Amino acid sequence: MTGDGLRPEITRAGLPLVSLALLAESPDHGYALLERLRERGFDRVQGGTLYPLLRRLEERGLVEHRWLHEAAGPGRKEFAVTAAGRDELAQARAEWERVRDALGPQGDA
Amino acid sequence: MTGDGLRPEITRAGLPLVSLALLAESPDHGYALLERLRERGFDRVQGGTLYPLLRRLEERGLVEHRWLHEAAGPGRKEFAVTAAGRDELAQARAEWERVRDALGPQGDA
Repeated sequence: MTGDGLRPEITRAGLPLVSLALLAESPDHGYALLERLRERGFDRVQGGTLYPLLRRLEERGLVEHRWLHEAAGPGRKEFAVTAAGRDELAQARAEWERVRDALGPQGDA
Repeated sequence: MTGDGLRPEITRAGLPLVSLALLAESPDHGYALLERLRERGFDRVQGGTLYPLLRRLEERGLVEHRWLHEAAGPGRKEFAVTAAGRDELAQARAEWERVRDALGPQGDA
């Protein structure tokens, strides 16, 4: 927990997880993924956060990229989730659910 | 995301939230809270993590303590959630749900 409270840390922990989930739904370019994350409520996420995150996911073998070349213009990097990334996603989802269950019913709080 | 993967960061983000939720259910001593956290699945949490966390929650005004004095022996510190802590808990719960919704249905992943 930082001085900013609980929510920023939750958002920060959720971003790699949701990024993996979106890329598992369909591979995408970094910029398009950024747009999809914003649509899913990560409305403050910037490329300066997402692109290093994608690099780290790739270094860990959870994400891979390929270059797509159109007839004209520079190639575009498309990111996809690896088999290891799908495993990690399933386990991270389960951990998210586990914490949710640990919170107990809303009414008690 | 650290080199350890996504799960440790999720656990780390969930710990202050679940600690608040448990104290909102009933105020408790640090050690008893540690036991309750372990029962809720935070089986690796140590006092060396929880006690500084309680201090930080207290510094932020989310938790407060009082001393309980028994007939004999040293007093015991009991932690409870403040009104601000209940607000923060509600908002942090909502953020946890928001990220969960952003993950989409399991079947897509």
